[in-house]
Amino acid sequence: MQQIPGGVCAAQGFSAGGAHCGLKKVKPDLALIVSAVPAAAAATYTKNVVQAAPLHVTKRHLADGMLSAVIVNSGNANACAPDGEANAFAMCASAAEALGLAAEQVAVSSTGVIGVSMTPKMPLVQNGIASLAESLTADAAGSDAAAKAIMTTDLTQKEMAVQLTLGGKTVHLGGIAKGSGMIHPNMGTMLCFLTTDAAIAPALLSRALGLAVERSFNRISVDGDSSTNDFCLIMANGLAGNAEICEENADYAAFLAALTDICVYLAREIAADGEGATHLITCTVKGAPDEEIATTIARSVISSSLVKSAVFGKDANWGRILCAMGYAGVNFDPERVSVSFASEAGEVPVCKNGRGLSFDEELALKVLTPHEVEICIDMAQGNAESTCWGCDLTYEYVRINGEYRS
Amino acid sequence: MQQIPGGVCAAQGFSAGGAHCGLKKVKPDLALIVSAVPAAAAATYTKNVVQAAPLHVTKRHLADGMLSAVIVNSGNANACAPDGEANAFAMCASAAEALGLAAEQVAVSSTGVIGVSMTPKMPLVQNGIASLAESLTADAAGSDAAAKAIMTTDLTQKEMAVQLTLGGKTVHLGGIAKGSGMIHPNMGTMLCFLTTDAAIAPALLSRALGLAVERSFNRISVDGDSSTNDFCLIMANGLAGNAEICEENADYAAFLAALTDICVYLAREIAADGEGATHLITCTVKGAPDEEIATTIARSVISSSLVKSAVFGKDANWGRILCAMGYAGVNFDPERVSVSFASEAGEVPVCKNGRGLSFDEELALKVLTPHEVEICIDMAQGNAESTCWGCDLTYEYVRINGEYRS
Repeated sequence: MQQIPGGVCAAQGFSAGGAHCGLKKVKPDLALIVSAVPAAAAATYTKNVVQAAPLHVTKRHLADGMLSAVIVNSGNANACAPDGEANAFAMCASAAEALGLAAEQVAVSSTGVIGVSMTPKMPLVQNGIASLAESLTADAAGSDAAAKAIMTTDLTQKEMAVQLTLGGKTVHLGGIAKGSGMIHPNMGTMLCFLTTDAAIAPALLSRALGLAVERSFNRISVDGDSSTNDFCLIMANGLAGNAEICEENADYAAFLAALTDICVYLAREIAADGEGATHLITCTVKGAPDEEIATTIARSVISSSLVKSAVFGKDANWGRILCAMGYAGVNFDPERVSVSFASEAGEVPVCKNGRGLSFDEELALKVLTPHEVEICIDMAQGNAESTCWGCDLTYEYVRINGEYRS
Repeated sequence: MQQIPGGVCAAQGFSAGGAHCGLKKVKPDLALIVSAVPAAAAATYTKNVVQAAPLHVTKRHLADGMLSAVIVNSGNANACAPDGEANAFAMCASAAEALGLAAEQVAVSSTGVIGVSMTPKMPLVQNGIASLAESLTADAAGSDAAAKAIMTTDLTQKEMAVQLTLGGKTVHLGGIAKGSGMIHPNMGTMLCFLTTDAAIAPALLSRALGLAVERSFNRISVDGDSSTNDFCLIMANGLAGNAEICEENADYAAFLAALTDICVYLAREIAADGEGATHLITCTVKGAPDEEIATTIARSVISSSLVKSAVFGKDANWGRILCAMGYAGVNFDPERVSVSFASEAGEVPVCKNGRGLSFDEELALKVLTPHEVEICIDMAQGNAESTCWGCDLTYEYVRINGEYRS
């Protein structure tokens, strides 16, 4: 497996692009990704009870496990707004018309403010989609443009691609993602669009996506809020010519590993770009009775406002880590827990067997200064482990979210 | 039922006081509350798996349902620290010796930094307890001093008392509380000490406390963190001379109502004093299928960082409210939900049947300006209701918690 450029256009037969239609003032707000041939497709959706209209439309269009394109807008979530499904379907229809497809071959996804009707801007959106469909390219520039157009408060563009060999054939797999607020475990926590030229049956594609998402996007948290719109989609068009993956064989395992790697990369990028964040926090829990307990505890730690504020202040306040472990909702023996902080600047053990260690405060400050810091927990009560990612809580988060609508 | 002064000293036979022993630099850090005669006692404890040593000691001393005193320190949580139980017991023993009691008649409670050993400061603590026991008073000044000594990052002292008539006898009930960070539903979320001269059997006292806490302290959230030390204690010494409450009769109902009122008052005070808070947020949910669903949804709304940040920014961003309802973990029909904001400045409906209403942004700004703002949700899918309280998320919260240990 090897990292390559190209994002969602790295796989054969995919083209993409982005444009500005007027949902936002100046920045690009429309993205389109198209496969030259119908692709097997699978998706995961937010578990929020309040789901945006585009998700309902997409679920219907994905019922047969096949798609040819996905149209995405930023600047309006099309959630809790009048005529939401009609407008979401109209976006699919506009893309389909421009691309010579049926509307049912197109998925739709939106991100932005909740509760504002798209209706007044639908003429702009539909014109924008028509011209965007003319300007797609099958190269890195196309993927870049799409990655930029799905951003909201994101500061960084999130894009990744790899190639691997399946049965002697070179297969490509790439993706773009967005998200920096309303980010919390439990799919979806953001938008992510993945493409591959691997041949894989829809049922296995869906299984692989579920597992990869479980170990990546469902293990990050920015602020504990799962959005109404979150969505992760993969399209696999089979143009690589590998023998179609129809069972859980070695090819499936290799594909799953590559997919998980890409999702973890993009998930970490989202956590690092958390609104106002100055630190990417990685929490690893080992020595757990099982992986679910390890994940639950790691997630609780990276979700704690007090832990997040402490990391912002470069304060090795490990008591808050034990506290967050304690209210995670799983039972364990705190008397066996050890904790250390680590980063490129070194490692500092701060707690052993549930009791504080005396440690060098200057070293701790040094360890907590780099952008990426790790909280390492050893529960010493089993052999399972898990990793979750989050970010610190800063003044800037409050500023961004106190002013978002205005 | 009538509000009276006196806090924990309003009830006959209770004296209290506060002092500085050296756990904090300057501010008072020791509080002692004593009943002149052995009192029926009941308590609720944090549900955190990591529980501080004083809670373990107190549970043992409360096993027979009777107590005569409670000793409290601030400045050190005595959690995850060496010799925690020995030090907690030594605090009880010091108080008992000074008061002519057995150590088992004394409860102990601590609040402050986690993971720092009390051992080096135990001589100061024990001397402090001995002199504090000499200086207790049975008046408002004693209660005030105790209320001040249990504060950590609190800006306001939290104290309340009422009197009511039970079977022709005047009964007094009062309490003090602390808490402004690590505040989240699920007892305990802070420290609270209640006293009453009512005669009530320990089992009924415990039942009443559980119900009152469920409807007060378990319905507030500041930052989602349940502490290792949180604790609510009530002592009932029977000196009012009322017929002992031994069943769920009218006296029990009147006592429970008064106790709930005091707990709700103190809980709101804690939410309003949330670290860095500029707004007290009350979320009322009505039209719910049952009270538990109403509570779960109200709690999710007041816990959302995005809702909290929006209130800080006086931004009527109701989409975040629907979003937080949606991930509360209960099922409901979002298409029937209506939302409005209210305060002393007026009311502004913003969402009806799951869809945004056009509203006057200037009026909304006016409604969201007072210190206390209400988020009113009507689910229109039942007759149950519930109320939870929280506060906004501000720059100041981040500053306080980025610097707490230093």
